Amino acid sequence: MAKAKEVTMKTSIKYHQDDPWRLSEATFDPAHLGKYEAIFALGNGYLGTRAATEEANTGEVRNTFVAGTFDRLNEDEVTELPNLPDVFQVALVFNGQRLDLNQGKVLDYERSLNLKTGELSRHFIWRFGRNRYRITTSRFVSLARRHVMGQRIEVTALDGDATLKLSAGINGQVTNTGTQHFNDDVKRLYPHHILQLTTKTNESQVNFAITTQHRLSVPDDRLGYVKTEMLRRRLRATYTLPLTKDDPLTFESITTVYTSRDLDVAYKDRASLRRQGYQAALALEKMNFRQLLTESAAAWADKLWTPMPLEIDTDHARDQLAINFARYHLQIMTPGHDSRMNVAAKGLSGEGYKGHTFWDTEIFLLPYFIFSQPEVARSLVTYRYLGLHGARTKAADNGYRGAQYPWEAAWVDDGESTPVWGATDIVTGEATKIWSGFIEQHITADVAYGVEQYMRATDDEEFARTRGNEIIIDTARFWCSRLEWNPDVDRYEINNVVGPDEYKEHANNNAFTNHMAHWNLLQAMQLIDRLKTNEPAEYQRLDERLDLAALRPEIEERLGKLYLPAPNAEAIIPEDDAYLTLPTIDLKPYLTAGRVGALFDDYNLEQVNHLQVTKQADVILLLFLFERHFSKRVKLKNWQYYEPRTTHDSSLSLLTHTNFAADLGLKRKAYSYYRRARDIDMGTNMNSSDEGIHAASIAGIWSMTVLGFGGVRYLDGRLRIEPNLPDQWRQLSFCLWWHGQKLAVTETNQTLKIRNLTGTRVVEIDHAGASVEIPTHDEVLITR
Amino acid sequence: MAKAKEVTMKTSIKYHQDDPWRLSEATFDPAHLGKYEAIFALGNGYLGTRAATEEANTGEVRNTFVAGTFDRLNEDEVTELPNLPDVFQVALVFNGQRLDLNQGKVLDYERSLNLKTGELSRHFIWRFGRNRYRITTSRFVSLARRHVMGQRIEVTALDGDATLKLSAGINGQVTNTGTQHFNDDVKRLYPHHILQLTTKTNESQVNFAITTQHRLSVPDDRLGYVKTEMLRRRLRATYTLPLTKDDPLTFESITTVYTSRDLDVAYKDRASLRRQGYQAALALEKMNFRQLLTESAAAWADKLWTPMPLEIDTDHARDQLAINFARYHLQIMTPGHDSRMNVAAKGLSGEGYKGHTFWDTEIFLLPYFIFSQPEVARSLVTYRYLGLHGARTKAADNGYRGAQYPWEAAWVDDGESTPVWGATDIVTGEATKIWSGFIEQHITADVAYGVEQYMRATDDEEFARTRGNEIIIDTARFWCSRLEWNPDVDRYEINNVVGPDEYKEHANNNAFTNHMAHWNLLQAMQLIDRLKTNEPAEYQRLDERLDLAALRPEIEERLGKLYLPAPNAEAIIPEDDAYLTLPTIDLKPYLTAGRVGALFDDYNLEQVNHLQVTKQADVILLLFLFERHFSKRVKLKNWQYYEPRTTHDSSLSLLTHTNFAADLGLKRKAYSYYRRARDIDMGTNMNSSDEGIHAASIAGIWSMTVLGFGGVRYLDGRLRIEPNLPDQWRQLSFCLWWHGQKLAVTETNQTLKIRNLTGTRVVEIDHAGASVEIPTHDEVLITR
Repeated sequence: MAKAKEVTMKTSIKYHQDDPWRLSEATFDPAHLGKYEAIFALGNGYLGTRAATEEANTGEVRNTFVAGTFDRLNEDEVTELPNLPDVFQVALVFNGQRLDLNQGKVLDYERSLNLKTGELSRHFIWRFGRNRYRITTSRFVSLARRHVMGQRIEVTALDGDATLKLSAGINGQVTNTGTQHFNDDVKRLYPHHILQLTTKTNESQVNFAITTQHRLSVPDDRLGYVKTEMLRRRLRATYTLPLTKDDPLTFESITTVYTSRDLDVAYKDRASLRRQGYQAALALEKMNFRQLLTESAAAWADKLWTPMPLEIDTDHARDQLAINFARYHLQIMTPGHDSRMNVAAKGLSGEGYKGHTFWDTEIFLLPYFIFSQPEVARSLVTYRYLGLHGARTKAADNGYRGAQYPWEAAWVDDGESTPVWGATDIVTGEATKIWSGFIEQHITADVAYGVEQYMRATDDEEFARTRGNEIIIDTARFWCSRLEWNPDVDRYEINNVVGPDEYKEHANNNAFTNHMAHWNLLQAMQLIDRLKTNEPAEYQRLDERLDLAALRPEIEERLGKLYLPAPNAEAIIPEDDAYLTLPTIDLKPYLTAGRVGALFDDYNLEQVNHLQVTKQADVILLLFLFERHFSKRVKLKNWQYYEPRTTHDSSLSLLTHTNFAADLGLKRKAYSYYRRARDIDMGTNMNSSDEGIHAASIAGIWSMTVLGFGGVRYLDGRLRIEPNLPDQWRQLSFCLWWHGQKLAVTETNQTLKIRNLTGTRVVEIDHAGASVEIPTHDEVLITR
Repeated sequence: MAKAKEVTMKTSIKYHQDDPWRLSEATFDPAHLGKYEAIFALGNGYLGTRAATEEANTGEVRNTFVAGTFDRLNEDEVTELPNLPDVFQVALVFNGQRLDLNQGKVLDYERSLNLKTGELSRHFIWRFGRNRYRITTSRFVSLARRHVMGQRIEVTALDGDATLKLSAGINGQVTNTGTQHFNDDVKRLYPHHILQLTTKTNESQVNFAITTQHRLSVPDDRLGYVKTEMLRRRLRATYTLPLTKDDPLTFESITTVYTSRDLDVAYKDRASLRRQGYQAALALEKMNFRQLLTESAAAWADKLWTPMPLEIDTDHARDQLAINFARYHLQIMTPGHDSRMNVAAKGLSGEGYKGHTFWDTEIFLLPYFIFSQPEVARSLVTYRYLGLHGARTKAADNGYRGAQYPWEAAWVDDGESTPVWGATDIVTGEATKIWSGFIEQHITADVAYGVEQYMRATDDEEFARTRGNEIIIDTARFWCSRLEWNPDVDRYEINNVVGPDEYKEHANNNAFTNHMAHWNLLQAMQLIDRLKTNEPAEYQRLDERLDLAALRPEIEERLGKLYLPAPNAEAIIPEDDAYLTLPTIDLKPYLTAGRVGALFDDYNLEQVNHLQVTKQADVILLLFLFERHFSKRVKLKNWQYYEPRTTHDSSLSLLTHTNFAADLGLKRKAYSYYRRARDIDMGTNMNSSDEGIHAASIAGIWSMTVLGFGGVRYLDGRLRIEPNLPDQWRQLSFCLWWHGQKLAVTETNQTLKIRNLTGTRVVEIDHAGASVEIPTHDEVLITR
């Protein structure tokens, strides 16, 4: 019998050497629909939509989301972002033959996402039998008008007259992998080809009005038979249109979405939203697709590209593409307009992780926004302030005090939203329990870490007083109650946790967790002391609210006796109490398998729990975040120890390894990790993005570029810049915000130039072990 | 600009001149998936499954139902049959290329349903690049074991070794057009490749256990990497298999379904059903696919084909195919095993009409079962007895007495299940109200009509005493309370109803309704009198229960004064009070449009309400059911009047026109209508069956064959046989049950031969105006 072989396919992804703003699908790739649906997703932080093609395809996942509109089916499930009724599917039937790119012949195909303008476009010629049709499509979600999305299809018959049947509408038959979140829909048809569906989510009772206007280049009085149908959960209009040879026909649909979660809508009942949608459709009539797209492209320039340029001078065009790709996605995934919402692990580009927010925000995404769009960062940390109630409830439910943040967060009031059951155990055949919601407790310190970084990097005192300080205090209070006293060794410990290495499900004294908890306690104590000394009125106010006087000595006592795993004789920090005593296995076969989770073909989670195998940067992340707390030797030794034991089964791992390797001066290693991390979504692994892009990993592209190679770092309240460019880059230039000042930074491996563009305040940075002042409206040039 | 043209396609349906048991799809027809999914549906009355192909296709509707497991999403919706997790989708990936019949080249394709054995099979060769693969599939739902379904796939690489990835499992991500009925699923993997999903419906809380065993011709120890996944609502196993050139590899899946509605399962909690499914899988291991299929084919012969032969001697092979097709579908659609269930308007072959039961059962389907499978007919009328509670509730809710049957019935306790809102009004743009549930009141008399026919045709006295008589009494009581006294004309009327002609939404004195109500009242009065005279004890019992003494004079008073629309001067019976005064339009353009609903391109329902246009046989049906109450002249005149005014927009119309034309001796007309009616599902209209086959129309194929052309009729309690074969048929032979006797009937246009096969009782029939006795175990030959 023959041996089964893995078969690799040629990739359909196309990079343009001369255009770092464009990413393309070079040939229609029906086997990898999910890849393009996710990486070509469109959005504006409010709306997000996957790039499912106009024509339906087997295996497609047709998602549109509105940030923050969480719903759950019933008490057995956790909330998730509901998949909205779709407006982008359009059936085109030429002379009775439905357009299907798997049939006939497709010529001159290219689908491209323009990262600069946010336009997704496609062109091809479809030949069926003896007839060829040229089809050009375009689509956008407006960055200028939050509620608006548009679509345009141009069709030309190249070989003779033909009849086109075009069906479009609003289709609420879509689900979240089979779960339906909407009910009680009301469908309406208005004059001027306006279709409307209003509906509401099952449990959270969020109202939605989706209104679409169809516009045809054929005047109404020459339109043939128009069939309008109200089907179950669906409205559809079918236009039978005459196609004259070589005479292009266009179809445009302009859609608005309004929900009762919207802060910019005053009246949120169904009837008002319906009126709102209809009025908006009428108001938009004066602009065509192209005008709306141009307006949106201008907003991209005004909001992002012009004020915050970021350029890499390199022959490696894909590196510049990557940073553009990353910033495009960071913009579309982030609901910066509403602090009741946060960034989802897959952005708004897929159903993966149900639209939930993780530690990814504070540890991986927040630095980008703090340094690039501090007003968005403020919204993201405010989300955690609004989540205090849920965090306090979780702490109380678990028998703790203070605020214990949920591992997965959804709507601000929801509290813990982590599902309890996950994938199958291959040994027992039963579902495995997801422990993260119960014991992956470092999230609470991570939130405090992000909040503190935001406050100190922006110097946003108003935020600190009204929101931030309370988070620092009550997360520390949680840790006070969480620490376990071990009388045998006369110390506090943190046992039975999941650390960043999620393979270890019941670890004792996970180094990362203990150090982060310690840091959290220390920040709170220093904050209390600082307030008491410098802001007695504010101290008084907070003390009345949070009883700081009682908390202060408690924290101090804990700090003195909390066990902090330290480097052993070989300078290795044990990941947890057991790790260094476990057997080691040869990881190579799994690391070279080229896919996530390969280890689990042979081991179940219980078994991996008892091996020296690490899922993602854990000790390494600790050393990266607190670089000034550990010696260079400890860093190098731990790198040498943990790197070969890490599977990178989390997309959060490679970027940390890049940045840490860059810090250690391991240039080639760093660039090699960079390329792997850069390509998690944008590369040629055609299935990695099926459930959506990897939000933290995409922020990681910026992080590796600016923090890792650019050497920019927030460290203990200070800004450090130490350029560390890879040999492949000649120059890196970017802007960043610090203490309310916008700095323009230009780096080579020999020079560092910083200009203070805002100029209302002198900025002080650390460089090469010294402090450097950037005067107002002046620039500093440092040469090595 | 060119003119838009309708384009017709060549049909892919293939009829076999030499095999009346086989219907085929001759070439893969991706544009008409629904057609084959419905007409190739498999089932056994308990389970029903649409014939979606193994590989997924765009636009497919992948349905599996278990009869009677109704659920509704919430209070805004009515109940429907939930679409079960699917087990038939199997992805085949050859050398990295997913099998997709729209790609590559498909050679030697044929998919066939064997009506005799219930096997759906398919064979083709798929060429992709330089490689050809032969694929043969087969599928059945067991008629021998109610809970069992099987699938077999055989794959051969014809041009060299290859690698096959085969993914199969249980997929609960399917919905009913976007509505999800299941939640709280539990997934399990057992040894021996047994996968199991248990789940329950949202509101009705029906438990389901679906268990599938995969069997591969590759021995376990030579199986490559087996990936098992528990996804959301879904279990999937992926086998990576080596294909050796010319060496066939087979995959079989044997599935069982158990639910907490099952009467043949003792313990119905989730754990017990799970155990039941697992035990059944182990017990079935001793039989392979072929053995299970053979066993099921034997059950088809034993239950249907052998005891009840039906043969047409004709050169028109499609007529014999049609009757086989009809009886096949009547068998698979009918849940005769459980009298809490009834036949759905689309059987178990689609989501159309949500699995609900209509008057179709009593007026169109019941005669088949009364004459062919009286034990199934008994179950169907018992359903109406169990529905008395719901019918009494509906009457009370509407301010009436007695039992008012729901227009749409689902679970016996549900009562009225008609949705309130239907399709869009093209003029106002709003949804139209469905009035049937409120005022299509003839259903109550229709139920009584069916029950009475069952009782008298079978002479089932036990049913009459325990169930049937009560239905006759309480439906009559409903009519007593429903009739409206009109003092102006000194008579009872029935105003504001929908008759069989559903275009007329608020008709007064619809002739069909008034006559049926009159008949219902008369039956009850005669029943009361008969009981009082012949069965005083039974009269006493029923009188105590239903107060017959008070009802009797009430009925008599109503009967004397109920207005019965009679033939006018031109012998025309007015369909309702207004009909004959309305304008007439030219219907030809709509009748020749070749599709249902064409009229509504130009008129809305409100407008059609005010035209002399009839949706379906209405007065004609009245004349057909009560042929002895009207003269030949009246019948002919009304035929001439109503036939040109009827659109046949209901599938119930053509068959009645066939039978009535046959009765009138309009032979060519009758056969022409027969062919149209016969072909509603089986013909070349490729979209008519998308939402499922037309149950009543399929029963109509039998009805036209045996009642229309065979001249068999139940008339006022008597069996009449008057052969009236079309010139295209030389002979028709069939069996039928009457008064517990099985008769073998052979007809030509010159002769009628009847043999009493049971021979426990003399049977009396009406023929040519005279009564003929069929002695026990003897035969009568009548020559014209």
